[in-house]
Amino acid sequence: MIFIALWGLLSFPGLAGYGQVERRLGDAFYVVPLGVKGGLDESNLSAYLVATKGNYDYVCLDAGTLRFGLQKAADSGLFDEAPGFQGQNPGHGPRDRPGADFVMRHFIKAYLISHPHLDHIAGLIINSPEDSAKNIYGLSFCLEVLRDHYFTWKTWANFGDQGDRPALGKYHYAPLTAGQETAIAHTPLFVTAFPLSHSKPNQSTAFLLRSGDAYLLYLGDTGADQVEESDKLRQLWTSIAPLIRAGKLRALFIEVSYPNAQPQKSLFGHLTPRLLDRELIKLDSLAGKGSLKGFPILVTHIKPSGDHEATIKEELAAENPLGVQWIFPEQAKALSF
Amino acid sequence: MIFIALWGLLSFPGLAGYGQVERRLGDAFYVVPLGVKGGLDESNLSAYLVATKGNYDYVCLDAGTLRFGLQKAADSGLFDEAPGFQGQNPGHGPRDRPGADFVMRHFIKAYLISHPHLDHIAGLIINSPEDSAKNIYGLSFCLEVLRDHYFTWKTWANFGDQGDRPALGKYHYAPLTAGQETAIAHTPLFVTAFPLSHSKPNQSTAFLLRSGDAYLLYLGDTGADQVEESDKLRQLWTSIAPLIRAGKLRALFIEVSYPNAQPQKSLFGHLTPRLLDRELIKLDSLAGKGSLKGFPILVTHIKPSGDHEATIKEELAAENPLGVQWIFPEQAKALSF
Repeated sequence: MIFIALWGLLSFPGLAGYGQVERRLGDAFYVVPLGVKGGLDESNLSAYLVATKGNYDYVCLDAGTLRFGLQKAADSGLFDEAPGFQGQNPGHGPRDRPGADFVMRHFIKAYLISHPHLDHIAGLIINSPEDSAKNIYGLSFCLEVLRDHYFTWKTWANFGDQGDRPALGKYHYAPLTAGQETAIAHTPLFVTAFPLSHSKPNQSTAFLLRSGDAYLLYLGDTGADQVEESDKLRQLWTSIAPLIRAGKLRALFIEVSYPNAQPQKSLFGHLTPRLLDRELIKLDSLAGKGSLKGFPILVTHIKPSGDHEATIKEELAAENPLGVQWIFPEQAKALSF
Repeated sequence: MIFIALWGLLSFPGLAGYGQVERRLGDAFYVVPLGVKGGLDESNLSAYLVATKGNYDYVCLDAGTLRFGLQKAADSGLFDEAPGFQGQNPGHGPRDRPGADFVMRHFIKAYLISHPHLDHIAGLIINSPEDSAKNIYGLSFCLEVLRDHYFTWKTWANFGDQGDRPALGKYHYAPLTAGQETAIAHTPLFVTAFPLSHSKPNQSTAFLLRSGDAYLLYLGDTGADQVEESDKLRQLWTSIAPLIRAGKLRALFIEVSYPNAQPQKSLFGHLTPRLLDRELIKLDSLAGKGSLKGFPILVTHIKPSGDHEATIKEELAAENPLGVQWIFPEQAKALSF
C-alpha cells in the first residue's frame, strides 16, 4: 500500500503539485469547484467559483458548501499566488497562505443563486456571520425566498437588505431580469439569467457569464422540457446556439442527478444521462449539426446515493451520440476554459 | 513521515482499533457526536446521537451535519456490531459494514431539535429525501419554523405532516410540553424539554434524556441569564439540581461559542468560558456546594473562527473554579456516560 502510494507520487510528479489546473482547455475562465454533489453530503454541495483567468475577483455560482470547499482549495495552494493577503490572515493556516475565511471575505465578490433549495444555499447562510458585504444576484423568485424564508430573524439573522427588520444589509439583493445582461459589481464579469423549470411549477435559473468575448454557461437544477411540459430549455438553447456556432461558448455546466433507471415520476425536476443527451441533440441542431463534438460539458449534481455516480458515468460514456467531452468536476480541483 | 506513522500504529495498537469508546465514564448512555462546531464548517455542525448502552435505537440531538458525520462514524466501525444490517446495504462501504444512509434510515429513530437555526437542522433537511419516517420532537416555537420556513414547497419538499400541501408526512411533528416528560417512540428513552433564551426574544431548548434511573442533559444554544435578562437557566438548574445531588445525572452538554474577550453586545445569545463558570456556580449551589467536582461537562458549539478553539480550551482550563471535568467532543468519536 505504501509502496503503491510512493510509486504513484514518483511516477507522476506533475499530479502532486500545488495550485495546478487539472485540465487546460482555455484561458478565459478559471473555475474552482467548492462542492459538486447533488445533495446529502453536507461537505460537498453545489458551489463553483469562477473568475477571469489570473484574476481573484470571483463570483460564486450557487453556494451549497462554502467553507469546507474553500478550505480544501486553500490547503491545496489554489490561492497561494493571490496578491494582498500577506499578514492579513492571522491564525488561518500556514504563513502566507490565505485560509477559507480570507478567500470568502476578499475574493468572493458576488453570489449568483440558481434556486433556493437548501443544497444550493446552505453554505452561504451558515457562513454569513463571517462574510463581507456583497451582492446576491438571482431572479426575483429566488431572492424572495432568501428574503422571506432564510434571512429572517425567525430562522437566522437577517443579513439581507430587505425583509424582516432590522435588515442588517450585509447582502444586497440584486434581482436580474431574464435575458438582459448585467455587470457583476467588483468583477470584470457580466451575467445573463435564463429561467429553468425544476419540477413544475418550481423554477430554477441558468447563468450565462461573459468575459470580453468569451462565455460560460451554468445551469442550476433542471428537468427536461418533455418531462416538465416546458419550453425553457429550448428557449435557452435557442439563445446560446449562436455563441456555440461562433466558438465563443467555452463550456456548459449541467446537472445529471439520476441514472437512466430512475422512474419519470421520481425525477423531481432532474435529468438523467438519456434526457441530457436528448436536450443536447436539440442544442446541436440549433447550433449546427456536429458543433458540440468535443465540446466540454461539466456534469454536476450527481446524487450520491448507492452507486449512482459510477452508473451515471458509465451511461454517459456508453451513449454520447454527439461525442461531447464529459467533464466531472471535483471539489477543490481547478479547471480552465 | 511514513516511519513515524508506522511507529504510531505499532506502539499504540489500542488507539488504532475500530469501534472503541474514547472515554468510559459510565454505562447508561452511548453518544456518537456527528458534528460539534458552532457554525461555519458545513461538515461538522451540531448533531449528537444518543442511545442506551448496547442499543441501536438512537435519538439525534440537533442535526446540523448528518451524513458527513455518520459516514465518518461508520467508516470508523462504530456501527459494525449492530444487528440486522447484513445484506441490506448494497453499494455502501465495505461488506457487512453499514453506511451513512443505512444508519440514518434504520438506527436514528427520532430527532430532537433545540432551535431552528440552520447550523442545527441543515443536515436533517438536506438528507430528508433519503431518510425513513420518524418523529421530530421539539417545543412548538421550533417545530413551527420547520413547518413554515424549511419544509415548505417554496424552499424544499414538504416532508412534514403539516403545513404546505401536499404534506408528504415522512416526519411527524411531535411537540413537547415544557417540563413534562414524554416517551420517545421506538426507543427506550424519555425526554423532558426546558425552554432557553438565545438572544432575546429568540428561544432555544434543553433536553433532559432519561434511561431508567440515569439522565443526560443537552442544552441547545443559550446565553447567560444575566446577559439575556432571563431566568431560564436558573429554572433549568433548579429542576435538575436534585438529579445531581442524587448522582443520577451522568453528563451535561452545554455551549461555549466565544472566548472571554467577546464583547457582550456581540454575544448573540451565546456563552463564554467565564459566563459558563458563573452559571455552573449557580447550579453547584443549588445541587449542594462541591457536587459538580469532577462532573463531566461536554463543551459544544465552539465557533471555529481564528484561534477560538485553543483560546476557549485554555480559558476553561485556567479558571474552572468548581473543578468540573471539561470534555471536548469530537466528530465520530464515541463516548459513554
